[in-house]
Amino acid sequence: MDSKQQILLRSNEAKEIYLPHISADPVIFGFENNGLKVLMLQTNYRQKWLLPGGYVRKDEDLDDAVVRILKDRAGISDAYMEEFGVFGKKDRSEFFFEDFDETLFHKQRFISIGYLALYNPSNTILVKDDISNACDWIFLDELDNIDIAMDHREIIEKALLTLREKISIKPIGYNLLPEKFTLSELQKLYETILGKELNRGNFYRKIKNLGILKKLDERRRGGAHKAPDLYSFDEQNYNKALENGLNNW
Amino acid sequence: MDSKQQILLRSNEAKEIYLPHISADPVIFGFENNGLKVLMLQTNYRQKWLLPGGYVRKDEDLDDAVVRILKDRAGISDAYMEEFGVFGKKDRSEFFFEDFDETLFHKQRFISIGYLALYNPSNTILVKDDISNACDWIFLDELDNIDIAMDHREIIEKALLTLREKISIKPIGYNLLPEKFTLSELQKLYETILGKELNRGNFYRKIKNLGILKKLDERRRGGAHKAPDLYSFDEQNYNKALENGLNNW
Repeated sequence: MDSKQQILLRSNEAKEIYLPHISADPVIFGFENNGLKVLMLQTNYRQKWLLPGGYVRKDEDLDDAVVRILKDRAGISDAYMEEFGVFGKKDRSEFFFEDFDETLFHKQRFISIGYLALYNPSNTILVKDDISNACDWIFLDELDNIDIAMDHREIIEKALLTLREKISIKPIGYNLLPEKFTLSELQKLYETILGKELNRGNFYRKIKNLGILKKLDERRRGGAHKAPDLYSFDEQNYNKALENGLNNW
Repeated sequence: MDSKQQILLRSNEAKEIYLPHISADPVIFGFENNGLKVLMLQTNYRQKWLLPGGYVRKDEDLDDAVVRILKDRAGISDAYMEEFGVFGKKDRSEFFFEDFDETLFHKQRFISIGYLALYNPSNTILVKDDISNACDWIFLDELDNIDIAMDHREIIEKALLTLREKISIKPIGYNLLPEKFTLSELQKLYETILGKELNRGNFYRKIKNLGILKKLDERRRGGAHKAPDLYSFDEQNYNKALENGLNNW
């Protein structure tokens, strides 16, 4: 069965199962080798890259749909996701299916709801679904080199802006860093999200003042420099800061 | 024509014009007499209070729909709105139309997109549409005394939480306060949104450090106390702060 036949078959099933006009697109960020990555699928049909999105079942809460979609499309089952934006321009996705006629489920107008999640790539082996060629983490600075379909580049950019805002009011790192990390790794994460360099002394002072770190009785071995201290998050304080926010008023 | 007949008539039109399953609900906050208010409509049918929501035309961008809805339902035409949450539980709104059968447009499942705006109540005379008894600003602490339909109380609460988060990263006040205001009025606005009292000295120092205020050569007359200084926003710096955020990293 070729990729067009696959889509036609899915269209008929989809009409029975899913609400029309509404889709969900998860933007999953990971952090590896001091860089931010985003989880993308390459479709069999037209070989383009897309977010691992999907549709909402007629009898399913929206929140449950997003969890199911990420499980079905990438094999990820324990990411916490948060809605960050709705993409509702007319004609934002329809032309992707130009080889099909108007009766195709996928070709109708969709208003897509964007979800943002942070996930450590080393926590899972990605599993692609059968309409995808590939399921992969793509570094943000490599996105310009791949062919991204529809408005999904815009969705990723909005997600990154949202993450940048969030970093001022919520602690970040728990789902992105390994259990033990150095302050310089944490600083690199903040710098990557903010898109700018931070003064080391200021950053160390501010991050320690949040009270969310535990200094461990261990150091990172093997580097050329003096072995740096290792830290982990104080889970209780971290969660308290998540709940209350880092409000500075 | 009674209120049920009105809805039946609208249902037939709606099927022609609007996308199914998608609605938008604007939460418009105003500030008056040192208290936050929200704009609500009371429906003719069942006399319940609702947000001034509506549907998206089949050929209309989502952003344009929200502007049109607020104009049609409350006569407000110049509020800046921002999406803040999506409400997608099944059965969240259907039971409101229990007197009708399943063919009613309004009775299908709707996933509703919440929009947040700040608006000075004195800038407009509200105009109710013909399916509403009333269109009014309701103080937040009076919401417990009115009969609110569907999950609209939950939508308002989520909007308030979002506003509380935003106040840490964006300047607030331009669309809520009169052109000239005292620091104590601005502090009261912040306290109302944050739901807690702030230390006066700290607040004055921090708000002045943002560089978004202009001290005027005038004082507020007529009070029992020493006439306080009047301020206005420095529009250029305010907009710069809006754009860049009050990021503290």
